[in-house]
Amino acid sequence: MIIDCHGHYTTAPAGHSAWRDQQVAAWEAGTSAPAYPAISDDEIRESVEASQLRLMDERGIDLTVFSPRASAMAHHVGDPAVSLEWSRRSNDLVHRVTTLYPDRFIGVCQLPQSPGAAIDGSIAELRRCVEELGFIGCNLNPDPSGGHWTAPPLTDRSWYPFYEAMVELDVPAMVHVSGSANPAFHATGAHYINADTTAFMQFLQGSLFTDLPGLRFVIPHGGGAVPYHWGRYRGLADMLGKPPVQTNVMGNVFFDTCVYHQPGIDLLLEVMDLDNVLFGSEMVGAVRGIDPQTGHHFDDTRRYIEASGLTEDQRAQVYEHNARRVYPRLDAALTAAGR
Amino acid sequence: MIIDCHGHYTTAPAGHSAWRDQQVAAWEAGTSAPAYPAISDDEIRESVEASQLRLMDERGIDLTVFSPRASAMAHHVGDPAVSLEWSRRSNDLVHRVTTLYPDRFIGVCQLPQSPGAAIDGSIAELRRCVEELGFIGCNLNPDPSGGHWTAPPLTDRSWYPFYEAMVELDVPAMVHVSGSANPAFHATGAHYINADTTAFMQFLQGSLFTDLPGLRFVIPHGGGAVPYHWGRYRGLADMLGKPPVQTNVMGNVFFDTCVYHQPGIDLLLEVMDLDNVLFGSEMVGAVRGIDPQTGHHFDDTRRYIEASGLTEDQRAQVYEHNARRVYPRLDAALTAAGR
Repeated sequence: MIIDCHGHYTTAPAGHSAWRDQQVAAWEAGTSAPAYPAISDDEIRESVEASQLRLMDERGIDLTVFSPRASAMAHHVGDPAVSLEWSRRSNDLVHRVTTLYPDRFIGVCQLPQSPGAAIDGSIAELRRCVEELGFIGCNLNPDPSGGHWTAPPLTDRSWYPFYEAMVELDVPAMVHVSGSANPAFHATGAHYINADTTAFMQFLQGSLFTDLPGLRFVIPHGGGAVPYHWGRYRGLADMLGKPPVQTNVMGNVFFDTCVYHQPGIDLLLEVMDLDNVLFGSEMVGAVRGIDPQTGHHFDDTRRYIEASGLTEDQRAQVYEHNARRVYPRLDAALTAAGR
Repeated sequence: MIIDCHGHYTTAPAGHSAWRDQQVAAWEAGTSAPAYPAISDDEIRESVEASQLRLMDERGIDLTVFSPRASAMAHHVGDPAVSLEWSRRSNDLVHRVTTLYPDRFIGVCQLPQSPGAAIDGSIAELRRCVEELGFIGCNLNPDPSGGHWTAPPLTDRSWYPFYEAMVELDVPAMVHVSGSANPAFHATGAHYINADTTAFMQFLQGSLFTDLPGLRFVIPHGGGAVPYHWGRYRGLADMLGKPPVQTNVMGNVFFDTCVYHQPGIDLLLEVMDLDNVLFGSEMVGAVRGIDPQTGHHFDDTRRYIEASGLTEDQRAQVYEHNARRVYPRLDAALTAAGR
């Protein structure tokens, strides 16, 4: 089985996005948002059958771990109430996709983060999504300010109540920023990758997983710059007097395979312990075109895994077994379905 | 000949750093900084002979392109006047090193940047260092705020007067941030690498080199995350309707080899055109320890180049010829010295 741990609902029906625009405009005007529109099952089917599902079939991906569009989370827009309603609407829409295609999609939730806001609202929405909607994880934004980086590091105690809920529910978080409100940072070309690198370094500097050994994070986009600079990180841990990265971080942190060329994937698979690598593509997502050097989509990451030197067993580890281990509720759902 | 394009004076005599502390304390107290201390030639000799020069000899590095300590530039501290005096003192000290060891070190300057300040002061200091001190380039900080990223992108017109001076003087800039004043970012583990990635994406989004074809930048630390995510960047250029990265950016942008493990260097040399790779180590710098996996210093990057599959001619390109092309004033100085 091939599980893609990183898919966003980037093709959500137009009514959903239009309502968001109205919601933000109403907040800016100090008025109430209009009623959320009716979206039919057919609209939802159409939104995924021509895109995600078609590509999953073409690429042989059985199941996608599916969450709301990351760049649209926009935690820096509005206030905690705006963020909460937008998160609930977005998560409910993902839930409808998973209900229509229970064999193909399983949900991961957006959180109602907001710069400077208490984390309680995110705990409540995480509980609702996991306990009521059958979701198996969440996307946690280390920078709700959208590129101004005003939040404390992920190792700060202020995050701990959320982490305790994650551990209690036995769900991991993908560390995932949203759009950039800072003109210095292009969202998918700089902010995303920087956030991945930043989060890893925060973990390296801390001892979060000593405090919370059951906590697990997926750092997307192949771990940002980390595998390419693996010597730097091993060396910095040593210089900072921290335990080796392998024991202090890598028991609890995993990288996906959203690296869009063969040499990058080859390095990822060579440098990292395979237990730490989960198949992902972020399809349909950041990079949608066809690579003229290969004739295939940049984000068709399965091709790179297939062309790597992994054995069949190793590929199965990356494609399936690691995801089932990191997302125990995914494993339980699959097992219950006889898969 | 082996030229290390990336060395900082991280071992400057204690009096220099102590004066900086006094300068900052005086600025905070609203008083005048004390007189800059006398530093003897012997102190300077001692500061490099036991560290940079010894390691250069051990590693067979003939010449280091030498600049003030990057993490200590601290453009976010003080004001433009404080930054100017600190920059001049730091550049003058580097000049003394290059005067004592003209065959081993050649200067690159720190700029008196300051958040929100006009770029004129940096132009004047660049001119002074190049025209009076024989320096061959500069370190340009894309984020003088120290991790708050309040400056416009490097493609913004406000930078152009500085670029025009660079082109007129025929000197490149290394894009190099300084210390981090943002607790989210560890300086050498996150801020440096993020800045490299961010600068590259800014170049990709713009058309700076169409406007200024004679402008050249070195992006250090192996180009941040860029070579590892080369497919992402090629794909983003396509999605954004920009010309291919190879023509829009890579005629004017170069990466150093400050990547501290073999697989990272191998990827860099495989993915990038060799014309775009300059030997560098950032020694003595960010990562000073010995890699237990190899028994050698993490930052002994020559070993990785030697162990790569490059031919002798290709190594000479990375070790010498590219640096002489990117830094014409380096080439002129070497040629004048019969090297």
